[in-house]
Amino acid sequence: MRPRAYGVRGVRRGKVWLVGAGPGDPDLLTVRAHRLLARARVVAYDELVAPEVLDIAPKTSERIAVGRRAKGSRHHEGRIHPIVIERALDGHDVVRLKGGDPFIFGRGGEEAEELAAARIPFEVVPGISAALGAAAAANIALTHRECASSVTFVTAHAAGSSSLADRAMNGTIVFYMGLGRIDEICASLVSQGWAPSTPAALVSRATLPDCRIVVSTIAEVGASAKDAGIVAPALLIVGEVVARRVEAMASDAPVPALLRRAP
Amino acid sequence: MRPRAYGVRGVRRGKVWLVGAGPGDPDLLTVRAHRLLARARVVAYDELVAPEVLDIAPKTSERIAVGRRAKGSRHHEGRIHPIVIERALDGHDVVRLKGGDPFIFGRGGEEAEELAAARIPFEVVPGISAALGAAAAANIALTHRECASSVTFVTAHAAGSSSLADRAMNGTIVFYMGLGRIDEICASLVSQGWAPSTPAALVSRATLPDCRIVVSTIAEVGASAKDAGIVAPALLIVGEVVARRVEAMASDAPVPALLRRAP
Repeated sequence: MRPRAYGVRGVRRGKVWLVGAGPGDPDLLTVRAHRLLARARVVAYDELVAPEVLDIAPKTSERIAVGRRAKGSRHHEGRIHPIVIERALDGHDVVRLKGGDPFIFGRGGEEAEELAAARIPFEVVPGISAALGAAAAANIALTHRECASSVTFVTAHAAGSSSLADRAMNGTIVFYMGLGRIDEICASLVSQGWAPSTPAALVSRATLPDCRIVVSTIAEVGASAKDAGIVAPALLIVGEVVARRVEAMASDAPVPALLRRAP
Repeated sequence: MRPRAYGVRGVRRGKVWLVGAGPGDPDLLTVRAHRLLARARVVAYDELVAPEVLDIAPKTSERIAVGRRAKGSRHHEGRIHPIVIERALDGHDVVRLKGGDPFIFGRGGEEAEELAAARIPFEVVPGISAALGAAAAANIALTHRECASSVTFVTAHAAGSSSLADRAMNGTIVFYMGLGRIDEICASLVSQGWAPSTPAALVSRATLPDCRIVVSTIAEVGASAKDAGIVAPALLIVGEVVARRVEAMASDAPVPALLRRAP
């Protein structure tokens, strides 16, 4: 067993970086996250972090799988992994990679609290939250000025909340991890007064090469997703902004004669 | 006057990249945004984009200031700058830098529509929206699991909306550009049933070296901000999550005896 540094007066504790890993595409890490990861010796990662992102870490780094589906995981979910605490107390810096942004449904709050309680220094590096990645991939402006003055991010779990109806009036809603409960979510919206014709888009594996987008209405999107064989993780975007989605031209498309300007 | 490429059959149009410039700190650009910017020949930027970010572009690049406060700006606000269209039609790729994320209060939707109408290829690169940068800087978990199941981003302008009261029940609200109307926003929240003691934080110039954070309540935050001399741009974060803010230890702090573990 290697010697441990803790217990020695004045020994520096390791620092834990709570790092947003973004929506999947490694190019959507922040510059800081990329730099931290590229020189990390210890990386603790969630199951939602894309393998392509994890590959940025040195091959020699210690990698710790954390999360509900991680093998051999016995720790209470939502709390930071005991090995992360142990490594930091041993003086090692740890990159704690979390899908999307650490403070948007990332349980980063609980992990920060636990680190503070253990008096382990930490710093949060924000990441591209899944909704932002999905919006960019699908060309949906979440707060298009002509039809939305707000956007709400909510977990599928909270979809039954009584306040959703009120949000309908002037805002976009993005349901995180919404695929599994899509029928329930949409039925709940309709029962709360949303028009069944309200535009809705399901974006699966946004920003990854196998990204898929289904554009429909809240009445139909569940069936459309099933027909299309959409798989999790997926986000559901609900609101008029979906109808304003813009189809981008491929960049190698020839210039159409009609729109060509005179020299 | 240099020759123009448009009008010639089959000539490739330039591509416009609608790029999120993040909250200010250049290290919070995405890897893709950094790469695009570092080799850009034409950069069109909003007034909110930090000079440190703009400095990543080559010194030889053409830089076009866009926005309400830009000198000599005569174009309709919210529409893409005519010079951007012109450069793209001339065959030049353009990096259109927008503060934060292009699709969160960035008017990226209108610009995408205009590019599509002009049949100019475009692609959206998401960015760290200001709320995410502010949350990370202030260590406020926007959706802390124990007190918020949603987070809503709203413009200060929409603060009078009747639906805000309902959002209070289970979610965090972030008001973008909230400093100028902070008293109005807070009075409106109280009149809609929010407790005056609801925690509220104002985060000014998040992620930049002169970032400042005022933690208070909706009853007091306006006065606190004035006392502290907080300047725009600033975000107002309202909700119980503010009270759960965690103070991070400095990374060079000595290990306190009390928490040192036995070897």
